[in-house]
Amino acid sequence: MPTTSIRGNKMPDSPIRKLVPLANQAKQRGIHVYHLNIGQPDLPTPQRALDAIRSIDRKILEYSPSEGILSLRQKLAAYYHKFKINVDVEDIIVTAGGSEAVTFAFMSCLDPGDEIIVPEPAYANYEAFAIVAGAVIKSIPSKIEEGFALPPIEEFEKLISPKTKGIMICNPNNPTGYLYTQSEMNAIRDLVKKYDLYLFSDEVYREFCYTGAPYISAFHLEGIEQNVILIDSVSKRYSECGIRIGALISKNAEVRRNVMKFCQARLSPPLIGQIAAEASLEETDNYLMASYNEYVERRKFLIDGLNRIDGVYSPIPMGAFYTVAQLPVDDSDKFCAWLLEEFNYEGETIFMAPATGFYTTPGYGTNEVRIAYVLKKKDLAKALIILEKALEAYPGTVYKHNH
Amino acid sequence: MPTTSIRGNKMPDSPIRKLVPLANQAKQRGIHVYHLNIGQPDLPTPQRALDAIRSIDRKILEYSPSEGILSLRQKLAAYYHKFKINVDVEDIIVTAGGSEAVTFAFMSCLDPGDEIIVPEPAYANYEAFAIVAGAVIKSIPSKIEEGFALPPIEEFEKLISPKTKGIMICNPNNPTGYLYTQSEMNAIRDLVKKYDLYLFSDEVYREFCYTGAPYISAFHLEGIEQNVILIDSVSKRYSECGIRIGALISKNAEVRRNVMKFCQARLSPPLIGQIAAEASLEETDNYLMASYNEYVERRKFLIDGLNRIDGVYSPIPMGAFYTVAQLPVDDSDKFCAWLLEEFNYEGETIFMAPATGFYTTPGYGTNEVRIAYVLKKKDLAKALIILEKALEAYPGTVYKHNH
Ligand SMILES: Cc1ncc(COP(=O)(O)O)c(C=O)c1O
Ligand SMILES: Cc1ncc(COP(=O)(O)O)c(C=O)c1O
Repeated sequence: MPTTSIRGNKMPDSPIRKLVPLANQAKQRGIHVYHLNIGQPDLPTPQRALDAIRSIDRKILEYSPSEGILSLRQKLAAYYHKFKINVDVEDIIVTAGGSEAVTFAFMSCLDPGDEIIVPEPAYANYEAFAIVAGAVIKSIPSKIEEGFALPPIEEFEKLISPKTKGIMICNPNNPTGYLYTQSEMNAIRDLVKKYDLYLFSDEVYREFCYTGAPYISAFHLEGIEQNVILIDSVSKRYSECGIRIGALISKNAEVRRNVMKFCQARLSPPLIGQIAAEASLEETDNYLMASYNEYVERRKFLIDGLNRIDGVYSPIPMGAFYTVAQLPVDDSDKFCAWLLEEFNYEGETIFMAPATGFYTTPGYGTNEVRIAYVLKKKDLAKALIILEKALEAYPGTVYKHNH
Repeated sequence: MPTTSIRGNKMPDSPIRKLVPLANQAKQRGIHVYHLNIGQPDLPTPQRALDAIRSIDRKILEYSPSEGILSLRQKLAAYYHKFKINVDVEDIIVTAGGSEAVTFAFMSCLDPGDEIIVPEPAYANYEAFAIVAGAVIKSIPSKIEEGFALPPIEEFEKLISPKTKGIMICNPNNPTGYLYTQSEMNAIRDLVKKYDLYLFSDEVYREFCYTGAPYISAFHLEGIEQNVILIDSVSKRYSECGIRIGALISKNAEVRRNVMKFCQARLSPPLIGQIAAEASLEETDNYLMASYNEYVERRKFLIDGLNRIDGVYSPIPMGAFYTVAQLPVDDSDKFCAWLLEEFNYEGETIFMAPATGFYTTPGYGTNEVRIAYVLKKKDLAKALIILEKALEAYPGTVYKHNH
């Protein structure tokens, strides 16, 4: 048998999906599993999107242009303008989800051995996409005690080498829910300018900022317009992850020229997804407001509930729909597996993502988990009870505090 | 401005799409352009697929499993069994088109510098996907005088080095329409076995074999089951290129394990496309028969017509819906551009793909074009007249023969 690729072998297993077999076994044993592990919102897709799909009257489902359908790109441009992101239609390339946008950004800008600096915990698939491009992620841990604020910019500067080609941020952040402040964004801008780096900015959660603090897009930063590559997706904001539509936005014509070659090779983004995304962009503000209000309530409910459990601590996430919580356990990988393999409370258990998968620095995240609040409040209430009971029962629980 | 990647810069422009701007300009000048350049069938998508989409009654368009929806994979397995391709459901991984299947196959099996041998002319994006994986394509030209038959297997053997990891074939072939014979396939099998290579076999055109000669799948070859990676797509056979559904099929668990990591990183294939593909697989044989009969007629009409034009020669393609024809021109790249930029016959012109884009061996294809017969017979008739008139008018026409 010929050998498989080193690259493939090096690819990490998804920290979100690797425990899925254990969850499936639990379900087979008749146990109800609350999914707090995955960023799959339970909110409805906009009715307009569903209607658009249901009223497709084409006879042939053809390839669309490699850069995406023009009218969708026009609507996206208008959408960004509402956020004072001043991009033109030609700057916008439609991709198969934000996932493909990150992949093509890395492929177009980074060569094997090139480095990018990423504050962590970070969306785990950045590491996967970096491996795809042969690039190397240098990570800087942010700290739960500091609410996962941006690490001091000097820490970034220390990592800069001749191989450094860019910085990648996610704002608002998955997994931490952190929202970068103006001064943090300015510090990033200055560094990007000083070393002429790419700034890959994943802003797929922009609709979900809860504290009144402003959302600052990478495109709001002056003087680095040619360096910014914005990653976007309709997956989360319209609860339509399955349609696989995202976008890569860049004002850098050379970057776009490269990206387009990857786009042409894969021929076209999904046609029906584009039709659904376009309809979603026509949805009234009520839709997004309703989602927003729902997440605001869940967030408060979940975070309050977590912090009431003995030994558990969660900072208050400012955006997105995740939080990284500290648990009084020996090893969150073991604890999350144990929850699925051995524990149940009244026939139910919870599925959380161990936070180690969101760090590359060894030792980090071993007593943290990521929890997605994509379930209804009554389910979150049950999940909180299960977590509390589980911590009481888990042999590896260690209470370090002294109240 | 930071530099873009060497890989991106090295990516070829799509030979099929690079002349699109010229075609658009021609259209703006009011000229009607017949598209013979692209494998976008004009036949209807199965009604069942359209109906399935139109009757979606979900409230949330969610991520699907990374490997694809189980019921679709089951239907695909049953479909392959009809062709005596004995694969199990677990061997089948659903991808975003055949394009993603080729990409993930290369990523999972090949490392930078690894080589694969590909007979050419070949589907141009193999080169693009090889660059994505950092792999190197070693190509062996097949010859129009030999009807693009498989080059002697000794030519393959000569190219084998310690870096050779596989052979890639497309059967029936795009762009030539060639269908490999049993003895050619056996020769490939023996080589694959002797050197323990991967056999990447792209069989997306299996439904279109016109001569009564048998279609031989790589999975029909005995003793190399662990080496075969089959590439499939519903794009062409159901005229639903826009839904972006394909498949990667392998009996090699290690390969699948790697492929699944790439699948998980990109989260999920398109949901609605999967629903459409599943419905298409339930279509009666009448649908495929009608498509087939249509292509049979067009093929005869086109090839007869081409061979009647002075100085033009096309072998008779046995499958797919393309032919590579030789033209009495100095340079087919120039001729194809000239057709769009300078020529029209009664307000109409034709868009063909210069064959140079399907070869990597320098000098090959300069007097060949690829023509897709994805237009109705009456349009093909007009296209043939335009080609004849164009050859009479083109300054670079050189008649070499003496009849
Ligand atoms: C931060 C972030 N970026 C990108 C993605 C990719 O999502 P998609 O490919 O569905 O757009 C996700 C999905 O969870 C995400 O959380
Ligand atoms: C030989 C061959 N393989 C693969 C593909 C990829 O098609 P898709 O990604 O639409 O499945 C094509 C498209 O033209 C093709 O001709």
